Amino acid sequence: MFFLFILDINKEYIMAYDLAIIGGGPAGYNAAERAASGGLKTVLFEKNAIGGVCLNEGCIPTKTLLYSAKILDNIKSASKYGILTDTNPGFDFQKIMSRKDKVVKKLTSGVAMKLKAYGVHFVEGVATVQGDKDGMINISCNDELYSVKFLLLCTGSETVIPPIKGLADTEYWTSKEALELKELPKSLAIIGGGVIGMEFASFFNSMGVKVTVIEMLPEILGAMDKETSAMLRADYTKKGIRFLLGTKVSEVATGKVFIEKDGKQETVETEKILVSVGRRAVTTNLGLENLHVELQKGGVKVNEYMQTSHPGVYACGDITGFSLLAHTAIREGEVAVNHILGIEDKMNYDSVPGVVYTNPELAGAGKTEEELKASGTDYHVLKLPMAYSGRFVAENELGNGLCKLITDNEEHIIGCHLYGNPASELILSMSMAIDRKLTVEELKKQIFPHPTVSEIIRESFFV
Amino acid sequence: MFFLFILDINKEYIMAYDLAIIGGGPAGYNAAERAASGGLKTVLFEKNAIGGVCLNEGCIPTKTLLYSAKILDNIKSASKYGILTDTNPGFDFQKIMSRKDKVVKKLTSGVAMKLKAYGVHFVEGVATVQGDKDGMINISCNDELYSVKFLLLCTGSETVIPPIKGLADTEYWTSKEALELKELPKSLAIIGGGVIGMEFASFFNSMGVKVTVIEMLPEILGAMDKETSAMLRADYTKKGIRFLLGTKVSEVATGKVFIEKDGKQETVETEKILVSVGRRAVTTNLGLENLHVELQKGGVKVNEYMQTSHPGVYACGDITGFSLLAHTAIREGEVAVNHILGIEDKMNYDSVPGVVYTNPELAGAGKTEEELKASGTDYHVLKLPMAYSGRFVAENELGNGLCKLITDNEEHIIGCHLYGNPASELILSMSMAIDRKLTVEELKKQIFPHPTVSEIIRESFFV
Repeated sequence: MFFLFILDINKEYIMAYDLAIIGGGPAGYNAAERAASGGLKTVLFEKNAIGGVCLNEGCIPTKTLLYSAKILDNIKSASKYGILTDTNPGFDFQKIMSRKDKVVKKLTSGVAMKLKAYGVHFVEGVATVQGDKDGMINISCNDELYSVKFLLLCTGSETVIPPIKGLADTEYWTSKEALELKELPKSLAIIGGGVIGMEFASFFNSMGVKVTVIEMLPEILGAMDKETSAMLRADYTKKGIRFLLGTKVSEVATGKVFIEKDGKQETVETEKILVSVGRRAVTTNLGLENLHVELQKGGVKVNEYMQTSHPGVYACGDITGFSLLAHTAIREGEVAVNHILGIEDKMNYDSVPGVVYTNPELAGAGKTEEELKASGTDYHVLKLPMAYSGRFVAENELGNGLCKLITDNEEHIIGCHLYGNPASELILSMSMAIDRKLTVEELKKQIFPHPTVSEIIRESFFV
Repeated sequence: MFFLFILDINKEYIMAYDLAIIGGGPAGYNAAERAASGGLKTVLFEKNAIGGVCLNEGCIPTKTLLYSAKILDNIKSASKYGILTDTNPGFDFQKIMSRKDKVVKKLTSGVAMKLKAYGVHFVEGVATVQGDKDGMINISCNDELYSVKFLLLCTGSETVIPPIKGLADTEYWTSKEALELKELPKSLAIIGGGVIGMEFASFFNSMGVKVTVIEMLPEILGAMDKETSAMLRADYTKKGIRFLLGTKVSEVATGKVFIEKDGKQETVETEKILVSVGRRAVTTNLGLENLHVELQKGGVKVNEYMQTSHPGVYACGDITGFSLLAHTAIREGEVAVNHILGIEDKMNYDSVPGVVYTNPELAGAGKTEEELKASGTDYHVLKLPMAYSGRFVAENELGNGLCKLITDNEEHIIGCHLYGNPASELILSMSMAIDRKLTVEELKKQIFPHPTVSEIIRESFFV
């Protein structure tokens, strides 16, 4: 696809592109690949590192660390499977961290290579929107001017720093610093028991750190299914994590977190503090005001094509301020590019999976009971302990899990919530079922491989 | 659902049922549960142990052993993930075997409990079909007579013992004996490199046994995709297994397997021999001749409702002589019961998954390139190394894998072949796609959770 550009001959240094993308995280780099392969002349701006938070300081580094932790966990329980080894295995923390860096480097190099192969022009620098004129949007970066027909905003999100008394004067970690450690602390207080908080809690617990999770809400893991979240919490309580639910942090100081629970005050002594209360869309310092792009609820407002209030401007990923997940971002980027290319497509959030990479894992897709109750919608639950799966029994001496399916009045699968390994890899099938509005009766005819943990889903159909 | 029975008043000891099932393996016990929950008065006969070969001497015990082996493998490679432990871990073979027995017992007890809960009458004994009269089929077992409206045959299969010279006079194992070991041999020759042979090869290799796999065909793993099979073979060659492909066993003797390859003869010295050249439907000693049930290709002939040539007799599972897989059997049992109950349903083999529980695992569903080439059908291949998945990279220091999708001319997914963990749990999604005749374009709109190994499938859509 080609667009004709009428360039101002007095500004011959303006570079013309079909599409500019600001932000090289999952939304941005995937959209850039799709756009370029669709024939759009594409420029991608990234101010930090290609791959964004996800590849550099989020999904990938945490999962790499968590896998080392999982191996450690497995060694500790190896005797239950007849394997004789150290009952108290150690680890080389430097090596764990340097392997994480190696994995990140391998994957970001892969992304850079693919962008090059697709012919995307990659520019390292801070891009600023200057405004639009004659149907073209102007962007400056590294003292150069770019004139583009379409702009895709993928600037992502940043850690929210809550206004806790004393926090500004106290050393604390966000997820970024927690991933750059040189050595482990003896104890760690995690403020915020959402997905990010719990993945770090899991990692540091496996590494022998005394972890306290402080959560303001009555349950951990935010919007995930409450029943499975409570199971995970119970398992981690047994493993030594202290959970303080319905607990407000009133103040922090070096080595201390002052909390308030049920009107009572307490002090949590801790060597380190990790703040993980949430993330917030990055919409400032971009020059968005020059395009009059409408914002809402802390993010850029978009329609189902990921188009903002400015018809030439799209926004994908965390910048929209909702569903802050890499896989949402990837799909949103495709929807935006398809809309630009005139290919029919639109965004659908009905079956977006959510995964918590603790050990065991927890995953969900579609509606939760809590959501359905709140909206007064009828629903039915089909559920079974994971131990009804032969393979789960063969591979899990340490505990049980749960498979919960939620159906509507016509037996369509509208939600699935799994607790137990490998939930992260199983949830896709039920995401597909939700997306395709499949019923239990239809799915009963599906052959599930035996013996797999995935069979627990099939077994649940017959409950 | 109820059937009325006109009993001969002179034979008041005849017990009347709607449905008799012979064989309590996956086909039989699942069908019994479904039939009873559908209102059929059901009797289930089993001559050995409830659960059949699958639960007692197949799927479940092997997967339990293979999981112990996997933990051992993981410990050996733990240092690559920064974990410090024994570089040479040991094992308690008795404990590995007794854990296997414990898992089997737990699962078979679960099946027995469920049968009871559903109200299935379970009879331990050898059932023999006596014939039919006035629309009823008569079966004897333990000197009692049963008169039933419908009969479901689920007698399964048995190990094929090939006519190899010397075999009858030599001690050898089948899969059954291999699962009952008290101690490990130093070396093992496996005759037959199919799925069963390779799962045992994998287990004994992990346990330090010197394994030789002798396969008559040019590649291991039978009908599985050849490219991924060859990758698995290459990986296990590196781990020390000796593969003799295109090799005929001409004779065996204690401690020796005489082979012939490319016209040359050689002797493989080995402490033990495992025979795993295949399995054969059990159709004899059942009294089938009394019902004139038609046989074909070594199994009982059935239509798409699993009905035999006798309209009151159904056959499910390995007894049909094809697709000898537990999950096929389970589904076939449901189809048969639905047909009896008058519920619309029929058997479809298009997407039956096949899984090899080596480490790494291999799995496939739908068409293979080899099948399509042989039938002269056009097809397209979309494939990517597993290392394009960020999570795979985070969790696999030891090797790569492959994701191969096969599409037809309209871009429908018609085959999927995966090599790499956890292939067994990933294949379901593509089995669903094949079953529902989904196209690549449709699946591109599916959100795959990030970061998961399942994403490699999504990445392949864009190749």
